[in-house]
Formats: sequence, C-alpha cells, structure tokens
Amino acid sequence: MMGEHTVKSFDEDLEAVDKLIRDMGWLAADMVERATKAMVNTDLDAVNRVIKDDLDLDEMQRAVDDSAVTLIAKRQPMAQDLRAVVGAIRMASDLERIGDLAKNISKRVRAVGDVAASRDLAHGLQHMAQLARDQVNGVIDLYIARKADQLEALRDRDEEIDVAYTAVFRELLTYMMEDPRKITSCTHLLFCAKNLERIGDHVTNIAENAYYMITGHQLSAKRPKRDEFARGDNGN
Amino acid sequence: MMGEHTVKSFDEDLEAVDKLIRDMGWLAADMVERATKAMVNTDLDAVNRVIKDDLDLDEMQRAVDDSAVTLIAKRQPMAQDLRAVVGAIRMASDLERIGDLAKNISKRVRAVGDVAASRDLAHGLQHMAQLARDQVNGVIDLYIARKADQLEALRDRDEEIDVAYTAVFRELLTYMMEDPRKITSCTHLLFCAKNLERIGDHVTNIAENAYYMITGHQLSAKRPKRDEFARGDNGN
Repeated sequence: MMGEHTVKSFDEDLEAVDKLIRDMGWLAADMVERATKAMVNTDLDAVNRVIKDDLDLDEMQRAVDDSAVTLIAKRQPMAQDLRAVVGAIRMASDLERIGDLAKNISKRVRAVGDVAASRDLAHGLQHMAQLARDQVNGVIDLYIARKADQLEALRDRDEEIDVAYTAVFRELLTYMMEDPRKITSCTHLLFCAKNLERIGDHVTNIAENAYYMITGHQLSAKRPKRDEFARGDNGN
Repeated sequence: MMGEHTVKSFDEDLEAVDKLIRDMGWLAADMVERATKAMVNTDLDAVNRVIKDDLDLDEMQRAVDDSAVTLIAKRQPMAQDLRAVVGAIRMASDLERIGDLAKNISKRVRAVGDVAASRDLAHGLQHMAQLARDQVNGVIDLYIARKADQLEALRDRDEEIDVAYTAVFRELLTYMMEDPRKITSCTHLLFCAKNLERIGDHVTNIAENAYYMITGHQLSAKRPKRDEFARGDNGN
C-alpha cells in the first residue's frame, strides 16, 4: 500500500526535524562556551547575548515538538519511524536544558565578580566548557550521520568532564577555606561547574537516545559515575 | 468510521498510562521526603532504599514510554489525544528526574555527615522537602482529575520553595564563613537544597504540560524567577 512517494515524504519530514535538532545543538554548544567565557572575563554584554539566545533555543524546541506531533499525525509512522520521532522530541528537550544550564551560568556572572578570572580556576572552567561544547557538537554530528557505533565511545568520554569537574570542585573548596570572603562567589562558581558537569549528563542522555533510535537496542549500562561524592568520603 | 468501542479503548489505554504516571508521582514524592529525612538523620539504610526506589522509578518511566508508543502506533490518535500521549511521555520524564534528584540527595548523606542535623538547617531542609512533596503530589492529582483551572495556582506556589531555598542558601553561607571546617559538608548540603529547588522547577514543567494537554493552550508566562542570584548581587 505504501508508495515510494509516501515513504520519501516521511524521510523528508524527518530530515526537517533533524535540521532543527542540528541547529539547536550548534546554538547550545556555542552558548556553553560563551557563557563560560563571559564568566571568566566578567563580560556582561556576553551574558545578555546568552540569555537572549536561550529564548531562541526555547522557540526552536517548540518547533521540533510541533513538527514531530504534526509528523506523527500526518504520517502515522510505525515502529522504527515512530521511535525516531519520539527520540527527536527527547533530544530537543535535552538540548533545551543544556541551553538553560548555559543561561544559568551567565546569570551568575554578576554574583561571582572577578574571582573566576583567577588563572587556575579560569583554566579549569574553560577546559570543562570546551569538553562540554565538543561533546554536544560530537553527539549531534553522530546522530545526524546515524553513526551508532561511535555513540557509545562518545558517551563514555563523559568521564573526562567528571574528572575536570572534580578538580574544579576541590580547587573551589580550597579557595573558600583559605579566604572566607570568597565563599559567596565560590558557591556560585560551584554551581557553574556543576552545570557544566550536568551538560555532560545531558550529552549521555542524547547519545543513549540516538543509539536507541538508530538501532532499536539500548546501549550497554554505563560505567559507574565518578563525581565529587567519593571525595567527600575522604574528607577533603 | 470511529465506533464508540474504539474511542472507549483509547480512553482505557490512556487511563492505564495515567495510572502509571500517578504511581510514579507517589513514589517520586515519597522519595523526596525520605531522602531529606535520611540526610537530617544520617540514616544510611534509608539512603539505600531511596537508591533502590530510583531503579523502580526508571522502570516505570520505561513502561510509560512503551505504553505511549504502543498507544500511538495502535490507535493513531489525532489532535488532543495525540497531545495527551506526548504529554504523558514528558511528564514521566520530569518525574524520573525528580527521582534522580532525590537519589542525588541520598548519595550525599555520607559526605555531609551530621552537619545536616543542626536544628535550624534540619528545619529548613525538611520544610523544603515537604513543600516539594506536596507540590509533586498536588500536580499529579490535578492532572489525573483534569482540573486545568487549578494548575496555574499550583504552579505559582513554586515561589514558596524558592523562598525556602534562599533562606537555606544564606544560612549555609553563614555556617561556612563561621567555621571553614564545615565548608565541604555545607557545599554538599548546598547541592541538596538546590536539588529540592529544582524539584519545584520540574513541578512547574509538569503543571505547564498538564495544562496544555487538557486545554490545548499554554499557561500564561510565569512570574520572573526569584532565586539566590539577586542576593548574590547584594553581596551577602
């Protein structure tokens, strides 16, 4: 019953959704990097641009949702096609949250002041931001190219962000202990670092979602998460 | 073409999804309360129960997703019905994240030690947890009963959690400044308080989703968010 034309149209519709997802991914990755730079440079103009970009990202998420719902209603896809559309809705949701986290970093710039400009901290935060940006771009590229086999390796690179986060976390604790006047600024920076670490978690979600969309199978269970809890036990 | 029997079956299928969502809501709300009690009482047995419950909650989310996808494939719903099914997927995702946040609180119990048992802090955290639990239960009840008119009022009560969070945040900063040896414990508590505040944000998402599902309209824009940023500006 299903003519080639109908099938092709579904693919075209899905490609339009994919294009939106890709644009969301690019914007979200860029926001992460710019928000962190704004923090390190106490750049309030850059802050405002990230906050504005977040509105665009929200708009793009609504476009994905609307397109996906229209696509389901119009094409009534089954099995793998349906999985792809539902997966796109979930990915857009993760990308929207990544944008929220970047916006949240931006909103803390004023409260942090110039503590973030300290050489070691700036290096640690920017390293985290670059890892996060590369992970976001990477996972979206692999999804768009449907390269399921590389998604697992990418997901497991989340470990790198966790390691970088733990280093920043410990450094911030040291700063606070050395100079209690820095405690307020440093707690805001702690939340920023945590946000960058959480962006890695969203990339993990996207990788798992994309893998399921492409293959119909779940990715193998992830290695146990390393984070600041373990260090808390050691009393540092 | 659509007989009464077919229509009734869709409703029955959706009711089954609703029942899963309700069970998820009850479990998630309960986990939030128990995780916070475990923190205040340094109760490691309770910690393990919350961590175990989170696995059940993840399983329930997968059941919602599977049921929703099957429902779309089988019934090929249009317009409002389709909106309801997609909305259920999103709600289950928010409830799963609420469970994750409760688990995250539990995992910090060991690192925090008995600092959380301090009378003022314990009161503040338990107050936040009760508000969060009531909000989660409340939003799910209103959704199940399809009471759209009360969802907006409930969403705006998120303000109460934000106010309680700001009080706990300030108190924690004071503790850290008074006694730098408490800094590590207090930073973990800061993340716990932040998690409770974020649970309020997920309730907001659920309320907005439920409202859209029931009415087909978006809730009016939310009041600007009050949180710890504003206070950071005041240099406290």
